[in-house]
Amino acid sequence: MTDKNEADLPDNWGRWGPDDELGTLNLITDEVRAKAAAEARTGQWVSLAQPITPNAMFFSPFLPEPVTSSPVQQMVSHTGGPVAADLSLVYNHHWQSTHLDALAHWSSDDQVYPGRPREQVVTPVGITHASTTAFASGIVTRGVLLDLAVEGPLAPAYAVTSHDFEQAEKRQGVEVGSGDALVVRLGWTGRGPADTPSPGISLDAVRWMHRRGVAIVAPDRGDAHPPLNPDEPSPLHGVALGRMAMPLLDVPQLDDLAALCARLKRYTFLLTIAPPRIHGLTGVPVNPIAMF
Amino acid sequence: MTDKNEADLPDNWGRWGPDDELGTLNLITDEVRAKAAAEARTGQWVSLAQPITPNAMFFSPFLPEPVTSSPVQQMVSHTGGPVAADLSLVYNHHWQSTHLDALAHWSSDDQVYPGRPREQVVTPVGITHASTTAFASGIVTRGVLLDLAVEGPLAPAYAVTSHDFEQAEKRQGVEVGSGDALVVRLGWTGRGPADTPSPGISLDAVRWMHRRGVAIVAPDRGDAHPPLNPDEPSPLHGVALGRMAMPLLDVPQLDDLAALCARLKRYTFLLTIAPPRIHGLTGVPVNPIAMF
Amino acid sequence: MTDKNEADLPDNWGRWGPDDELGTLNLITDEVRAKAAAEARTGQWVSLAQPITPNAMFFSPFLPEPVTSSPVQQMVSHTGGPVAADLSLVYNHHWQSTHLDALAHWSSDDQVYPGRPREQVVTPVGITHASTTAFASGIVTRGVLLDLAVEGPLAPAYAVTSHDFEQAEKRQGVEVGSGDALVVRLGWTGRGPADTPSPGISLDAVRWMHRRGVAIVAPDRGDAHPPLNPDEPSPLHGVALGRMAMPLLDVPQLDDLAALCARLKRYTFLLTIAPPRIHGLTGVPVNPIAMF
Amino acid sequence: MTDKNEADLPDNWGRWGPDDELGTLNLITDEVRAKAAAEARTGQWVSLAQPITPNAMFFSPFLPEPVTSSPVQQMVSHTGGPVAADLSLVYNHHWQSTHLDALAHWSSDDQVYPGRPREQVVTPVGITHASTTAFASGIVTRGVLLDLAVEGPLAPAYAVTSHDFEQAEKRQGVEVGSGDALVVRLGWTGRGPADTPSPGISLDAVRWMHRRGVAIVAPDRGDAHPPLNPDEPSPLHGVALGRMAMPLLDVPQLDDLAALCARLKRYTFLLTIAPPRIHGLTGVPVNPIAMF
Repeated sequence: MTDKNEADLPDNWGRWGPDDELGTLNLITDEVRAKAAAEARTGQWVSLAQPITPNAMFFSPFLPEPVTSSPVQQMVSHTGGPVAADLSLVYNHHWQSTHLDALAHWSSDDQVYPGRPREQVVTPVGITHASTTAFASGIVTRGVLLDLAVEGPLAPAYAVTSHDFEQAEKRQGVEVGSGDALVVRLGWTGRGPADTPSPGISLDAVRWMHRRGVAIVAPDRGDAHPPLNPDEPSPLHGVALGRMAMPLLDVPQLDDLAALCARLKRYTFLLTIAPPRIHGLTGVPVNPIAMF
Repeated sequence: MTDKNEADLPDNWGRWGPDDELGTLNLITDEVRAKAAAEARTGQWVSLAQPITPNAMFFSPFLPEPVTSSPVQQMVSHTGGPVAADLSLVYNHHWQSTHLDALAHWSSDDQVYPGRPREQVVTPVGITHASTTAFASGIVTRGVLLDLAVEGPLAPAYAVTSHDFEQAEKRQGVEVGSGDALVVRLGWTGRGPADTPSPGISLDAVRWMHRRGVAIVAPDRGDAHPPLNPDEPSPLHGVALGRMAMPLLDVPQLDDLAALCARLKRYTFLLTIAPPRIHGLTGVPVNPIAMF
Repeated sequence: MTDKNEADLPDNWGRWGPDDELGTLNLITDEVRAKAAAEARTGQWVSLAQPITPNAMFFSPFLPEPVTSSPVQQMVSHTGGPVAADLSLVYNHHWQSTHLDALAHWSSDDQVYPGRPREQVVTPVGITHASTTAFASGIVTRGVLLDLAVEGPLAPAYAVTSHDFEQAEKRQGVEVGSGDALVVRLGWTGRGPADTPSPGISLDAVRWMHRRGVAIVAPDRGDAHPPLNPDEPSPLHGVALGRMAMPLLDVPQLDDLAALCARLKRYTFLLTIAPPRIHGLTGVPVNPIAMF
Repeated sequence: MTDKNEADLPDNWGRWGPDDELGTLNLITDEVRAKAAAEARTGQWVSLAQPITPNAMFFSPFLPEPVTSSPVQQMVSHTGGPVAADLSLVYNHHWQSTHLDALAHWSSDDQVYPGRPREQVVTPVGITHASTTAFASGIVTRGVLLDLAVEGPLAPAYAVTSHDFEQAEKRQGVEVGSGDALVVRLGWTGRGPADTPSPGISLDAVRWMHRRGVAIVAPDRGDAHPPLNPDEPSPLHGVALGRMAMPLLDVPQLDDLAALCARLKRYTFLLTIAPPRIHGLTGVPVNPIAMF
């Protein structure tokens, strides 16, 4: 996990004090939110979430049987009377679920941001620090889409760099600023793990996010699998989430957003990221809404 | 469930065709959404969700033990390495969880809106019609708060009527229109079932919502318990949800919203209701966001 | 579910009074148990349970993913220190799980044995009558194996009759008596639902069990799929479980037992059927032990 | 966890080879089992399990709500037709559940018996060694009850020693031998964690079990809470389970057994311990049956 350049990795531990749980969400100031609100003008909107079809927990030889895993399992309950109800079992970090990773999802050197012993934070009875509690009232900020896949999905094993970001900024006429949500489309929405090596975000690109003051990042394909550089920490989980304390909006689906942006010729929008207000988790499913 | 006046109950079955799954969400037109977007001006925002503290599924005689129920149970998983992950078991209609009721949550005369046999809709392997699938891309519309509790919580067993709504409209200088989300504060946020009879929304108030074209309703206390009138169907579940096909945003917490509205002297806002994009459920937790 | 001969179906409703929850387990008298105990002589023993490999609830793109359903899902918990612990989610009637069906698993004409309205018995908060509570202290009796598959698995769609049972009795030199557990091997252990029609127990065979006073039945393939006779109630679920009130030991694996019986040239044994002492369920996994 | 005398602790690591998963269950030889079978003579029997009443996962303000934790949570499913079914969520090491602890439940110096790195054994997708797989075909052996509570429950904080065992042997006219299941009654069946310090099994008593060759131990109160000696490893979990590789039958209820033994004036019996045949867990609920 460590290498000789680790001291140079972007790092926000201590930047907002020893008790902070928000990390880079601190960068979303009232000014940023006012700018975000101003993006909502026409009422057109789009979801950045993958649809999830639950698997049934209950089945029989004579009922359809789930053949693939799903982030959600559902049981329809017996009730009686006019009511139908159900229970859901949710796996909070499933690769087919659009979800938010809390800072406590990742530790570095057995410590959770901004330096608490993991054994005090990750306990059998819940997460005591830097959990989804930080998302309780929702995240509202300006979203910026950088669409790197206008000419098709990125090539397998392609390493997205700061150069790609800056070219997209020029092409689209936007500029990512402090407190923004950076939405990055690689064109790999909904692709599962497979034999093909995926593209991914490079450490260089993460350093750029740090310089720009990105508050949260949402790439449709994040850390490459297999890793772009096995000798480095993983750029998004190991560095951005773990050290920069930047929450990761993992596994968004961005094709609908890209189509709407292209049609409107606008790549900035009001982004509302409001997962269920459940405290103390390491992650939580979310349905982010972009409004124009 | 039926009475001699049932034919007079407000009813939208058939209004949007035999295959409709949206119900009154059909009333949220582009025009309504444009008006809603225009409400987002300052970037101030507030959550309408109750916080949920999960119970741990894992405990021992030597760890704290849950003493009350929670809508969510959590299990922190073993991982190893830097990752912490967890699983959540979610009860979708818990009285302490801010959640959206799908139309299929309620049936009338063994039929689900707009007239499908319940046995075809509510199956052991999932809900096949009028489920949370209708909320997949989120609900974005104008929200209007009618605060009936400015002088304190409503009295026990108080029946909220259309008269209360119209007085609040005058007092606040707003008018509820077609496609709006009606947010009603009775001042009973977070109150559990108890010996005290709760106030609730009357059938008269529901008829008024029908006339006005309300798209979705969010009262901090909905159907009274015990019922206001045991001889009638329950106003919000039995009539509004079941017959008018109006989704119910159940158990919101509205104290924060009321405080912000009072401070801003504004009772209309952009309301984003975007639960996790999970198909086929009868209900789902949600964190609604009001933006000003 | 009913036909013109239904009045002739074997039926024990009322036989042991209006409050009974044991059904044919009442036939296991002290005398039967003494006879059963006398079967335990050498200490050789065998399990009649299918092995269950749980699916993991937790996985990632980089961990093995479950590809088929399992009766049990497992989550290994975070603990810390020397302890490893886990949680199991158990589906009580899975076709790959050796389990006991409680009498309340089946109702006839909306009634549960011996005549209680199903809505009073099967409630959202548990089963109030004729549940697994009846198995609380375990079932101990004499087991008799009738091995119908000595020359290979029975043919697809074969209907097992009383004639087959009596031939097996002669061939093996045993006689099934009142209070016995009847273990029937069709040679279809572990076979899943498939295109091939399965063999099954006929209604004639169930009538024979009734005449003999069988206390519990354990066939490695029970009710045929598709049904042997679609115009009749299903012999084991609809008649034996539902009307005769005979618990069903569903999905045993009998190959090991048959091999041991053949080697010992003994087809009777002490059978201990002791599922976890969980009250109020419709079924429960069990590991029956035959001792010689 | 270690102290200066640790080298003297009874230890079976390596005794049955580097791949063993059975531990002291290896001591149950054919000869022992034959002796056990000979105990079954009259057909009288008793369960050693605590009853478990599941909590409902589904409830409402208007249904009873669970107020204490239970080892099992139950959800009654919607089905339709004559079938009622349910799902159980089982916590495998609950202090109110009679359960078997697998050897992998405990590790010593980050190793699981007989010396495998814990990280290879305890994985997110299951337990790979020394799990409940070792109990797959059930445990059948001679049980011996040593009833230390004939004159009432042992005093709080009482340390049970080898002397207590040997006095009980004399009083009852029995002798614990190699391969036996040792059932020890302290008279604390069903007592929860409380302010009162509990009695417990001392390290001296565990050393005695080692000398005698006990295969499995079942005390109605095992490791005392708080610990008898905080400077030592816990006798039953840390030493007997962790180092002697002796499975622990945790939380049995022994009052019924003691009453039957006293009535029959017999303290040895055929003991069948056959939990559901679920592989790969750290523990599993069980309903042990003593037959006389």
